[in-house]
Amino acid sequence: MPSGEDDLITRYFKPLAAAPGALGLTDDAAILQAGSDDVVVTTDAIVAGVHFLPEDPPETVARKALRVNLSDLAAKGATPAGFVLTLALREVSEAWLAPFARALGEDADQFGCPLLGGDTVSTPGPAMISVTAFGRVPRGKMVRRSTARIGDALVVSGTIGDATLGLAILKGEGGPLDNDAARAALIERYRVPQPRVALAQAVREHASAAMDLSDGLMGDLAKLCDVSGVSAIVQANSAPLSEPGRAWLACDPGAIARLVSGGDDYEILCTVPENRLAAFEAAARSAGVSVSVIGRIVAGKAAPRLVDAGNREIPLQRRSYSHF
Amino acid sequence: MPSGEDDLITRYFKPLAAAPGALGLTDDAAILQAGSDDVVVTTDAIVAGVHFLPEDPPETVARKALRVNLSDLAAKGATPAGFVLTLALREVSEAWLAPFARALGEDADQFGCPLLGGDTVSTPGPAMISVTAFGRVPRGKMVRRSTARIGDALVVSGTIGDATLGLAILKGEGGPLDNDAARAALIERYRVPQPRVALAQAVREHASAAMDLSDGLMGDLAKLCDVSGVSAIVQANSAPLSEPGRAWLACDPGAIARLVSGGDDYEILCTVPENRLAAFEAAARSAGVSVSVIGRIVAGKAAPRLVDAGNREIPLQRRSYSHF
Repeated sequence: MPSGEDDLITRYFKPLAAAPGALGLTDDAAILQAGSDDVVVTTDAIVAGVHFLPEDPPETVARKALRVNLSDLAAKGATPAGFVLTLALREVSEAWLAPFARALGEDADQFGCPLLGGDTVSTPGPAMISVTAFGRVPRGKMVRRSTARIGDALVVSGTIGDATLGLAILKGEGGPLDNDAARAALIERYRVPQPRVALAQAVREHASAAMDLSDGLMGDLAKLCDVSGVSAIVQANSAPLSEPGRAWLACDPGAIARLVSGGDDYEILCTVPENRLAAFEAAARSAGVSVSVIGRIVAGKAAPRLVDAGNREIPLQRRSYSHF
Repeated sequence: MPSGEDDLITRYFKPLAAAPGALGLTDDAAILQAGSDDVVVTTDAIVAGVHFLPEDPPETVARKALRVNLSDLAAKGATPAGFVLTLALREVSEAWLAPFARALGEDADQFGCPLLGGDTVSTPGPAMISVTAFGRVPRGKMVRRSTARIGDALVVSGTIGDATLGLAILKGEGGPLDNDAARAALIERYRVPQPRVALAQAVREHASAAMDLSDGLMGDLAKLCDVSGVSAIVQANSAPLSEPGRAWLACDPGAIARLVSGGDDYEILCTVPENRLAAFEAAARSAGVSVSVIGRIVAGKAAPRLVDAGNREIPLQRRSYSHF
């Protein structure tokens, strides 16, 4: 007779564990074969009330939990290979778990990243979903943060700042937008990141360094520069903005600072040598992912600077989100 | 300027990330090389108030978080290769984190399982530590749960039931023991599991199936039998007990049921073909780990039976711990 926990795993998660190495979730461990590739490992957790709102739909919570990790893999140039899941829940509610598992399974299929195993535990606290995801890269080919070079172009995928505006709206900050569709689009960007899995190969083949944007562009860029021993200049008016982002900024020009420091973008930030830029841009076009050159890597140890069209520095009160 | 989170990682966890693939914890991901081996992946989380007590020393919490995963690897016949850590904390307290990280580092060294990466998040709830651990086995050699065969001997490492008695004492249940050292030994077994890493090779070479005991002997055995399509008979008087466990049972003979169904043993349960048993026992002796034959795999679909010296079934109200 299965216990509640086993029953939960069988009903909701076994259907997601189609990979042979998952052993149908009937074992203590899973098997991951790498062959001659390197295995890239990344882990990110999301907590109710911190990374998502307790009232967020279970489908978007599931997608965010997996996608923030897929975003890391993509930034490293890795192809998804699978993930393990730790689910800490106060109680088992069919109404929450069924759509959670269904959406997780859809994303696992869509991104070719099967469930390999996991652990479900009870907690008296808020729900927490911790994912460890695995990817494969040819040996020695993982793209690092620490290898940016002076003169490289600074490139970012997609658009930035949408998620932080979406969170502001969800938290009751009105904001200047009265267009419901625009507000909904920003909220969607907060709830459901778009991991740039399709860009992984272009990053691997052309970028000198890369990371994904989770805590805010300027703060994450500072980390990349710090470990690479370089600095950077970012042109504020080159930052790629969505239509709603652009509309918000038109009403509230000071919002540029929060767009470049707000979290949850889950775009790829990478540095590309000048002589690889055209090839990178062509590969991104083929992959169907928009990319924008937003600045340049420069010499120095100073924190990266954000400048306006007249090359005047735009001061930033904070550069990113920190948990503590 | 590092944020609080980065500073925390640098101060406490970077010293534990000596493996080259950890990249000094300065990247989004780590690199794990497997060569021709299979990578064995396991994940287990512990939550304050559920798997450990909020007042447990930070050192023992750290050791338990890693060791419950090392126990899984050992049961699969795998050699530890590294782990990633998700730490969800309400606040950063130097007084808690410093000894936590120090003890974690000591265990990582002792068991040859370096920190590869992690994520630290804030939570308004209880502390939670989730570990995903990796091991290596020669290709195709992971020992599974589903391959026990009729006639195999049922073997368990170490002693069982100590942790559940230790937890009972910590929870204020007096129990019959008035010997402080005996009570302390049981509490220690609850707080700090002894993963049988040294037994992994013997399991890999001789066992037909194996798993680690986390939720209780009889319940975990039922899982192994279920996926193997067999049943089992366990001789209650063959269950290996520690001195304090034996003393408790002498005062309270009914306690045998809780010893064989209580959680947190973190011993290896394995099935060994009769013609490999002597070799397995010799290998265990060489490894310095005691092992005991406690029963036998038999045909059938019935739940495993616990029997007394007269072969009468001992009824069990519950077989294991379930989270939900």
